[in-house]
Amino acid sequence: MRSGKTRVPIWAKKALSEDAKANAEFCAGRDVTTRPMADSVLIPHDIACSTAHNIMLFHQGILQKDEVCRILRALEEIRKLWSTGKFQIDPNLEDVHMNIETFVSERAGIDAGGKMHTGRSRNDQIACDMRLYLREQVLKFHTNCVCLVEALALFAEQHLDALMPGFTHRQHGAISTVAHWALGHAQAFCRDLERFAELYRRVNRNPLGAAAGYGTTWPLDRELTTSLLGFDGLLENSLDAVSSRGEAESEFSCVVGLMMNHLSRMAEDIIFYTTQEAGFFRLADAFVTGSSIMPQKRNPDLCEVIQAKTASAHGAVMSLMSLSKGILSGYDREMQWTKYTVEDLVDECLSAPRLMARALLTLEVDTERLRQAAEAGFLEAVDLADWLAAHRGLSFREAYRVAAASVEACRLQGRLTFISVNSCLPAGCRSLSEKEFAEITDLRRCLARRDQVGAPSPRQAKRSVARIRGYVKRQQRWASQAQERLTDAEERLHRAVAEILR
Amino acid sequence: MRSGKTRVPIWAKKALSEDAKANAEFCAGRDVTTRPMADSVLIPHDIACSTAHNIMLFHQGILQKDEVCRILRALEEIRKLWSTGKFQIDPNLEDVHMNIETFVSERAGIDAGGKMHTGRSRNDQIACDMRLYLREQVLKFHTNCVCLVEALALFAEQHLDALMPGFTHRQHGAISTVAHWALGHAQAFCRDLERFAELYRRVNRNPLGAAAGYGTTWPLDRELTTSLLGFDGLLENSLDAVSSRGEAESEFSCVVGLMMNHLSRMAEDIIFYTTQEAGFFRLADAFVTGSSIMPQKRNPDLCEVIQAKTASAHGAVMSLMSLSKGILSGYDREMQWTKYTVEDLVDECLSAPRLMARALLTLEVDTERLRQAAEAGFLEAVDLADWLAAHRGLSFREAYRVAAASVEACRLQGRLTFISVNSCLPAGCRSLSEKEFAEITDLRRCLARRDQVGAPSPRQAKRSVARIRGYVKRQQRWASQAQERLTDAEERLHRAVAEILR
Amino acid sequence: MRSGKTRVPIWAKKALSEDAKANAEFCAGRDVTTRPMADSVLIPHDIACSTAHNIMLFHQGILQKDEVCRILRALEEIRKLWSTGKFQIDPNLEDVHMNIETFVSERAGIDAGGKMHTGRSRNDQIACDMRLYLREQVLKFHTNCVCLVEALALFAEQHLDALMPGFTHRQHGAISTVAHWALGHAQAFCRDLERFAELYRRVNRNPLGAAAGYGTTWPLDRELTTSLLGFDGLLENSLDAVSSRGEAESEFSCVVGLMMNHLSRMAEDIIFYTTQEAGFFRLADAFVTGSSIMPQKRNPDLCEVIQAKTASAHGAVMSLMSLSKGILSGYDREMQWTKYTVEDLVDECLSAPRLMARALLTLEVDTERLRQAAEAGFLEAVDLADWLAAHRGLSFREAYRVAAASVEACRLQGRLTFISVNSCLPAGCRSLSEKEFAEITDLRRCLARRDQVGAPSPRQAKRSVARIRGYVKRQQRWASQAQERLTDAEERLHRAVAEILR
Amino acid sequence: MRSGKTRVPIWAKKALSEDAKANAEFCAGRDVTTRPMADSVLIPHDIACSTAHNIMLFHQGILQKDEVCRILRALEEIRKLWSTGKFQIDPNLEDVHMNIETFVSERAGIDAGGKMHTGRSRNDQIACDMRLYLREQVLKFHTNCVCLVEALALFAEQHLDALMPGFTHRQHGAISTVAHWALGHAQAFCRDLERFAELYRRVNRNPLGAAAGYGTTWPLDRELTTSLLGFDGLLENSLDAVSSRGEAESEFSCVVGLMMNHLSRMAEDIIFYTTQEAGFFRLADAFVTGSSIMPQKRNPDLCEVIQAKTASAHGAVMSLMSLSKGILSGYDREMQWTKYTVEDLVDECLSAPRLMARALLTLEVDTERLRQAAEAGFLEAVDLADWLAAHRGLSFREAYRVAAASVEACRLQGRLTFISVNSCLPAGCRSLSEKEFAEITDLRRCLARRDQVGAPSPRQAKRSVARIRGYVKRQQRWASQAQERLTDAEERLHRAVAEILR
Repeated sequence: MRSGKTRVPIWAKKALSEDAKANAEFCAGRDVTTRPMADSVLIPHDIACSTAHNIMLFHQGILQKDEVCRILRALEEIRKLWSTGKFQIDPNLEDVHMNIETFVSERAGIDAGGKMHTGRSRNDQIACDMRLYLREQVLKFHTNCVCLVEALALFAEQHLDALMPGFTHRQHGAISTVAHWALGHAQAFCRDLERFAELYRRVNRNPLGAAAGYGTTWPLDRELTTSLLGFDGLLENSLDAVSSRGEAESEFSCVVGLMMNHLSRMAEDIIFYTTQEAGFFRLADAFVTGSSIMPQKRNPDLCEVIQAKTASAHGAVMSLMSLSKGILSGYDREMQWTKYTVEDLVDECLSAPRLMARALLTLEVDTERLRQAAEAGFLEAVDLADWLAAHRGLSFREAYRVAAASVEACRLQGRLTFISVNSCLPAGCRSLSEKEFAEITDLRRCLARRDQVGAPSPRQAKRSVARIRGYVKRQQRWASQAQERLTDAEERLHRAVAEILR
Repeated sequence: MRSGKTRVPIWAKKALSEDAKANAEFCAGRDVTTRPMADSVLIPHDIACSTAHNIMLFHQGILQKDEVCRILRALEEIRKLWSTGKFQIDPNLEDVHMNIETFVSERAGIDAGGKMHTGRSRNDQIACDMRLYLREQVLKFHTNCVCLVEALALFAEQHLDALMPGFTHRQHGAISTVAHWALGHAQAFCRDLERFAELYRRVNRNPLGAAAGYGTTWPLDRELTTSLLGFDGLLENSLDAVSSRGEAESEFSCVVGLMMNHLSRMAEDIIFYTTQEAGFFRLADAFVTGSSIMPQKRNPDLCEVIQAKTASAHGAVMSLMSLSKGILSGYDREMQWTKYTVEDLVDECLSAPRLMARALLTLEVDTERLRQAAEAGFLEAVDLADWLAAHRGLSFREAYRVAAASVEACRLQGRLTFISVNSCLPAGCRSLSEKEFAEITDLRRCLARRDQVGAPSPRQAKRSVARIRGYVKRQQRWASQAQERLTDAEERLHRAVAEILR
Repeated sequence: MRSGKTRVPIWAKKALSEDAKANAEFCAGRDVTTRPMADSVLIPHDIACSTAHNIMLFHQGILQKDEVCRILRALEEIRKLWSTGKFQIDPNLEDVHMNIETFVSERAGIDAGGKMHTGRSRNDQIACDMRLYLREQVLKFHTNCVCLVEALALFAEQHLDALMPGFTHRQHGAISTVAHWALGHAQAFCRDLERFAELYRRVNRNPLGAAAGYGTTWPLDRELTTSLLGFDGLLENSLDAVSSRGEAESEFSCVVGLMMNHLSRMAEDIIFYTTQEAGFFRLADAFVTGSSIMPQKRNPDLCEVIQAKTASAHGAVMSLMSLSKGILSGYDREMQWTKYTVEDLVDECLSAPRLMARALLTLEVDTERLRQAAEAGFLEAVDLADWLAAHRGLSFREAYRVAAASVEACRLQGRLTFISVNSCLPAGCRSLSEKEFAEITDLRRCLARRDQVGAPSPRQAKRSVARIRGYVKRQQRWASQAQERLTDAEERLHRAVAEILR
Repeated sequence: MRSGKTRVPIWAKKALSEDAKANAEFCAGRDVTTRPMADSVLIPHDIACSTAHNIMLFHQGILQKDEVCRILRALEEIRKLWSTGKFQIDPNLEDVHMNIETFVSERAGIDAGGKMHTGRSRNDQIACDMRLYLREQVLKFHTNCVCLVEALALFAEQHLDALMPGFTHRQHGAISTVAHWALGHAQAFCRDLERFAELYRRVNRNPLGAAAGYGTTWPLDRELTTSLLGFDGLLENSLDAVSSRGEAESEFSCVVGLMMNHLSRMAEDIIFYTTQEAGFFRLADAFVTGSSIMPQKRNPDLCEVIQAKTASAHGAVMSLMSLSKGILSGYDREMQWTKYTVEDLVDECLSAPRLMARALLTLEVDTERLRQAAEAGFLEAVDLADWLAAHRGLSFREAYRVAAASVEACRLQGRLTFISVNSCLPAGCRSLSEKEFAEITDLRRCLARRDQVGAPSPRQAKRSVARIRGYVKRQQRWASQAQERLTDAEERLHRAVAEILR
């Protein structure tokens, strides 16, 4: 009996591993899961934003010591409640901002609470919240992509010699290896890492202080909030600070969309390689659903769901791009909807690279079947032609004619034979020795000959693994530095609070 | 103070009308609203599907009387619990199907419960549930569009004579009326009605009995379930019955997307007409947010949110189209994601036409300002040229030259003057009498002259109103017949249950 | 040597068949093909539009006999030149309308020529041209889809008994046949036929007489042009007649997009079935490119290109939908771009279904390999379980446990064996006789048992073929009636010209 | 008479300026323009690619001196023919590669010509050509964006003091200036510059040497071709080098799409600001079409066409993203279609920012009308409230109540009056002096008070202009360095050819 669901409990007897749980959650989608209030994920960011803003107001003499103390204490209280799951958004209070403001007003008194919004608007406040949220997500995506690239490098290292047919047009086209396949994907995900890092720098800019888009009469110090919130710089022009809201989200969706396309390609490869027809790979039980009575049936749900989520990502790109088209400058209500699209996108896609990494690390490779597949299809005939051109001085045209004729003569055998090849040589062309023939047609040697930088020879693949690892290390270094700057800023913010409250 | 929210309580003194509530809900989006489990909206449909399937199993001798009775009783119990909000989905039971099956097994005993799924698969079951769900949504969209067309017709009728500049290229281009504007939109939404009706017929086909896509060994009677569930016919081929799942959803999203584009055009018109610059229209308080200290500020949130939701609809189209591309025949796990996209689309867009209808019916039209706008811009010069061509035998070229010269001569006055026009006539051309001049340049007469079928003259507009109403009546008749057939089927189903349980 | 091109001349020795030429053209794309001026395809439509408009002007007394004669003669001259490829658009004259108007003015004199545009605007003129163009394309798409459905029906008829594994989740899931697969696709394309027919009725409406969107002072008879141009009715409201321009194009792109998604699914099936791994199907030489020295390499270029064009269609949908979002009522310059998108879409996709039909009719099916694939995977175990439930009174749970145990016991043999199955029966359960066992596990009988309407049994498939053919016949009847109405209108137009010129 | 075309000759009397010509071409679209063969734009890139590859083959001892000389001479001949427009693609020779190869074979003899493709495949060749093409386009887009940012900075500088209402929700929301508006856009386009620069680095990587995706037996030196072609580095893994083809195109389309969204926002602003209703701006004659007899009609065709092309860009994004989804690793024929989408995108959008720059520099600003608009709407009431909170110790709530009451009291006057404001103060609150009142409500002072970094005060705007200019200078420096590296590489390539041919 098959299933449209991860019905692991039914068809598998063994205990659920962590992988299986993660996969089940990933594949379960929203069937029996509610989506939270969109503003609930913004709570910690809104607290940070308000904290920094109010410290700044105090530093600028806009708030009195007494006022800021009461406000900061109330905000700290919310943070504590939230971190223990006790701060819940009340839908009657419209949004996260009003919820927090109301709480502060109740705790700090309406006089103080009523001032926490001085020199600020919902427009710059939500823009700030969203950027705090987005930069966090970008770093998480980066981290998960790093996992996947590491997994691919490891997988490649383990399969440097594992022959497989290289596909072009979905047909066997050349000799290749499992390592080469994995390294192709690894290189693609490295570009995703690059894009996430670049995006981070563009997202991590401070819109706070823009007010409704046209500044304010209050003497704000935007540099101070920039520093307290760990932004890399200002989003200077106040109109753009507000109007650019949909753009950060659009670019984010594009970068995620490109990454999902990479994942969808990898998923499609695995789907094909794990069909009963190909039988090259076998996904671990955690990543398939099956049938108790059709043991060969191993539905690659993970890979299918990745395809679905890729399509969702395309939809998100289009929704965000279309939303921003032809919209007037200044805050427009449309922008509120960018929040939902982005949150859904994160929810759907964030764990995808990490799961794929796990699927890869638990993948069984049927090297024997792959080798057999590589041996069929006369992939070595190209080498014969190249060799004849290089060593017998035949023109390409002639060399290929000989190779084609040899293949034709050996159709039944399925592989080139010594006798047939020699019998196909043109008059005057010196015959191949047995050693030469073996050298030319042995698939391992064919492989070893593909030895430019980036080619599938094990020697080159090994070097590529090393280079990829070096690249990942640099990316990780960048990510931890970025993370450290955030942690430093967080401490700066806490210290500033502590100093005031002291 | 401006607001990114429907902060009606703060800026408006008066009690919230129902409109305001509906609008607030529409514009609040998902900020402080959770989205339900996707499967929860399928509960009634899954009950109906299982009820019909089991009745059929009994009729075919596959279930014993005793078994079917126990199953049907359990299903009835779920229906009752659900209708009083007491049937909740348990997330540990994966999906709506398992939740219901488990409940039945508990109530009816594992023996009977275990048989309710005989000859069925999740694949045809969910396909059936989704079509039951979709046809209901299509009818609701149809109904809401009918409201909007009726509102537009009424609005047109009330403004048959209300002059306004007709825009081309966002510039005043011709004389028109508010009625003509409304009728243009009405006609567009009529095509949406047509599309919903056609879509309904394609959606309302029965996939049940397709099992996993390849039929079953059990002797099912698919005609019986078709009749019991009120389907208009079979989705015959069992493979297509399952594979077409994403297609019904894609087409649905296209039809909704086209309707949203119509709404977005109407919203854009209203946004422009309600700017402080144009001041043609004034939205009722229920549909704007404002500012206590900038009384002219009336943010057209409804219209802005419609733009945002139009972009979401575009995203849905793309997500669904991209999902189905290059997918293999047969059920694939991707399809599960079409459920979420479609439910979100319904949730976002269903009430949009109805709200727009309300906004229209409560709209204030500043006919005086519209008239003034129509009078500026020399819209009557076209009539002068046409008249000269028709009554003075000037060639078009010449007639337009005279009109242009007249306009040039009257630039300062802002409207054509009798003297200037006559002084611009070519030698030998008989002067205009005062009566002729008045006849030509009076805007009401200009309007009356535009009198082909579908043109803005009040006479034609009045006829169009009548025709639109006739059309709507036919559409309503279709919808109520469709609804009746569903009600009949529901009763048939109930009777069948009752007969068995008797 | 592989190829990114249809390099038929190089790798194939035999003469190019017509299929090969058509396929080569389809796959060549725009590499070495220029795209024509967008307005050039509108020439015949613009002539028809102007002819009908001017006849009407004459009937309404707006044009003199002498004037209309000169205009009509000039238009006839253009038609003749065009039909022999001698009417070329002069880019200096901006567009097709100006080119034709200028020609008429030269031939008929500026006086007459200058009047041919009376009571008309570019806005309604181009809207009319596009609808004449679109309705023609819709009929062509319909025709080509009919071909494909016929081919699928024929193909199904030829393979009623050809066993194949039915896929779910890209894995063998059930017993099926090649006919069942083909009929699944046929049914999907029937819905495309339906959609094209419905779209036709919506497209074939007359916008002429709307002028710039606000009617005109000239007493036009819109019913007359409706009749002369073979429209099914008026697009009444003049503002909508002009504003709806992008909508007809959007809906067209959606309908084509849905059809392309169907084709892309079929293409994906064929791609997979023709891999060296599956080897189920073999495309004819005309539809593949290959390699002289890797004889098994048969690149399914047609299928790949269909995937690419499906993506282009998605892009067209999005471009058209996004273009119309939030645009003001009335003609806006944006609309001009809808012309290019639609023409490109037609150019890319029109012949796709016809080529797929040809590919299908020349497809080789390896029934032996398909049968072997169907025999592996224990697809018959489901039947065993169902049989035990039906004939031995086991509960489903128990029946499936027996089937699973039997499969487990026969893993090495790859198929269920009589002894193993009986040894797995629970105590007290009567053994299967050899006859029963054979009855249950013989794949042909398994197939025959799947015998509901629409299931894969040859009996049902044969009936489905008949029904599909009946459906196609009705669709063809509709299409020829639609075509006849167009031909009648064309004759009406010619007669009207002839009568005037007499 | 209105027009769907740039009918400048008809309605304008003056000679066409260069701007008008450029705009006419931009807006003419493809009505009377053919699109070239897609491969024709690749000619120079294919020559460069082949030249570098063959030099490398010679350096590696794969080609003989004599052979390479003959090949290089033939390639030089093609380059010369091409640069004088004399090298035409013959459609019978399939593609640019075959055209060039055939020419070389004819000139250099089939022996030499037949070897020029040694160790190469169409797959890496076209990937290389496309990257050479793309990097060139990226630099051009960058240059055109620089123009626009410079124009915006200049425009801002000229309008530092020009008051205008700042919009939120399409309604007057705050006091602002024309400079602030322009700087908002400038800042957005700066991010586009950044993205283009980052994209350049990712695009400018060498895929050559990847062969069909699996390397080759020939001992290629990929570093050498990297250097000769001015690539910034290798696209190492050969499989990814080929498979990434659609990705570079997708990312390119995303970056262009984001830029087009910025342009579409600016265009929408200008469309609104140039309506007869707003009358804030007046586009130069070169960028509008109009009507001889409706002088106020100035259709903003440029801005409308930018909206259309933005939608086309969205379509391109979707087409490219959808194309790459779920495609197998290795070259697949789909990729050919990415060429067309990208070329069309370049063709549509490349000149857009430059034209917008020109439109801006020739824009007339009606500062008087803008000032009047700013004065209506009680924008100064916010300052009153803020002032009362800051200087009279009122709580926000109270301060806003006073401001609202004052506005209410002055509705008829349309602006706050001294008496009304004072009469609204709560008991015990010290009255405002005349000087204070003037200070608070004078719009220029309101403006000056908005003086945070990035706020609209002239002082801040002036600083922003300087910072933007500094930023642009750095971007220009990057671009000229990138361009220099390309020029250096070109010279390197020429020198290498010269040395060999010497």
